[in-house]
Amino acid sequence: MKFKYFVDSGWQHDPQPLDDRGQQFGDGLFETIRLDGQGNAPLWQMHIERLAQGLKALRFSDGAVAMISEAITAIEHPEAVTGCKLLVTRGVGPRGYGFSPDLMPLISVRYFNAPDFSDAPYIAGLSDVSLSTQPLLAGHKHLNRLEQVLARDGFHPQWDEAVMLNSDGLIVEGCMSNVFVKLDGRWLTPEITSSGVNGVVRRWLLDTNPEINIRNIGLPELSSAQGLVFTNSLVGIRSCHRFDAQVVDLAPEAKRWQLAYQEMFENA
Amino acid sequence: MKFKYFVDSGWQHDPQPLDDRGQQFGDGLFETIRLDGQGNAPLWQMHIERLAQGLKALRFSDGAVAMISEAITAIEHPEAVTGCKLLVTRGVGPRGYGFSPDLMPLISVRYFNAPDFSDAPYIAGLSDVSLSTQPLLAGHKHLNRLEQVLARDGFHPQWDEAVMLNSDGLIVEGCMSNVFVKLDGRWLTPEITSSGVNGVVRRWLLDTNPEINIRNIGLPELSSAQGLVFTNSLVGIRSCHRFDAQVVDLAPEAKRWQLAYQEMFENA
Repeated sequence: MKFKYFVDSGWQHDPQPLDDRGQQFGDGLFETIRLDGQGNAPLWQMHIERLAQGLKALRFSDGAVAMISEAITAIEHPEAVTGCKLLVTRGVGPRGYGFSPDLMPLISVRYFNAPDFSDAPYIAGLSDVSLSTQPLLAGHKHLNRLEQVLARDGFHPQWDEAVMLNSDGLIVEGCMSNVFVKLDGRWLTPEITSSGVNGVVRRWLLDTNPEINIRNIGLPELSSAQGLVFTNSLVGIRSCHRFDAQVVDLAPEAKRWQLAYQEMFENA
Repeated sequence: MKFKYFVDSGWQHDPQPLDDRGQQFGDGLFETIRLDGQGNAPLWQMHIERLAQGLKALRFSDGAVAMISEAITAIEHPEAVTGCKLLVTRGVGPRGYGFSPDLMPLISVRYFNAPDFSDAPYIAGLSDVSLSTQPLLAGHKHLNRLEQVLARDGFHPQWDEAVMLNSDGLIVEGCMSNVFVKLDGRWLTPEITSSGVNGVVRRWLLDTNPEINIRNIGLPELSSAQGLVFTNSLVGIRSCHRFDAQVVDLAPEAKRWQLAYQEMFENA
């Protein structure tokens, strides 16, 4: 086994990316964004808004939030790519948790090709990692993602996603997505005020389908679900065909949502 | 306001430190270590052991843990520095939370001068950030430190430290240290099985003073404390003189512990 190995005798003497507070503390946020392959990101504005909310939660100044948002708004995406990961950190600071408002934030943009939209059977299981409760960080797509790293590592080989519960046994989200459940003919999605990420597709679905309600959902309720849907910016909206041993109904509304989402990325 | 700005059209095309999973997910661990200014770290072995436990919790393979520990053991510290921050991440991987065991870990070592040991009055307050509960990560000094970043930002100007509670109102630790409380003539330190860091000085104190008990401590109990001590590898062992408006007794045992710790770093 080989290592990457950096030894430097001076802190902040010629600061390096490794000294970034993203690397040191996970002190930042990210967005994963689907593009249409022609330089457009249809939900770009919602990503920028969520990022701004996250920056405020991490106590970036109003001025910094405005200027970072402006800089990101001005980004021109290349054509022929369908995915973008945007990462913003507080930048390189002196040693220790404390930060001053005059640090220079880091904005990093990486493009890649997202997977093609798919209708293949979508299989989910139950994660063995419970999400912790932290109202100060809930909803935000911050860089403290060890729970997701451990959850992803626990996937069975056939799983596409895993349902994650909080320590009270309530459903929060998927490892990489938000969750929608159809119960007694009504669509529900869990609150994400104590843990979880306020996904952009979640918000888009709630905006465009006001009949969907937000309420906590216990795991046992899944056994009578008439539909189970996962949402993620890259993958889009996917009906779950099987949750553990349970075959789940494929609700027609979910198919309509899926197509409406995908249409935003189709070019004439 | 200026930004550092990186745009790259290819993921993992010429991987960069910014693609490190430390930066992406906080997928790693760190150690902050006091040196004696002559190239020696008296508690080095305990730091290596804790790091190894953390690597196992993050599901590094046994082989990787052994080889990382071996590489770190072989590090030769420079003289004339008194602090070292060691950071280990899972390295650069493909996009997404998943990882394979053949990623090349990143080991980064930064030296700096720690503050001189001090007897100045040590003032603490109560953090307005509650620590979340995650038994899978508790005890380990991992890179998901946003709770500490937010807590540190809430320090009053005169505070040296802040006591952090969990969501049940029990004392866990300080923002940068572990906590010991003397109640009814007995020293106690909280459990750190659900949240908090198993500090090396905490472990050293428990090893060398078996009369100290581990049990949960409620915040109201502090009002009758006969001693309140914070421990941290760099700062050492400090008696708290004032907690909020409360003047705290300075217990003679704490002074002895402080001197015993400092002696390890004194050279003839």
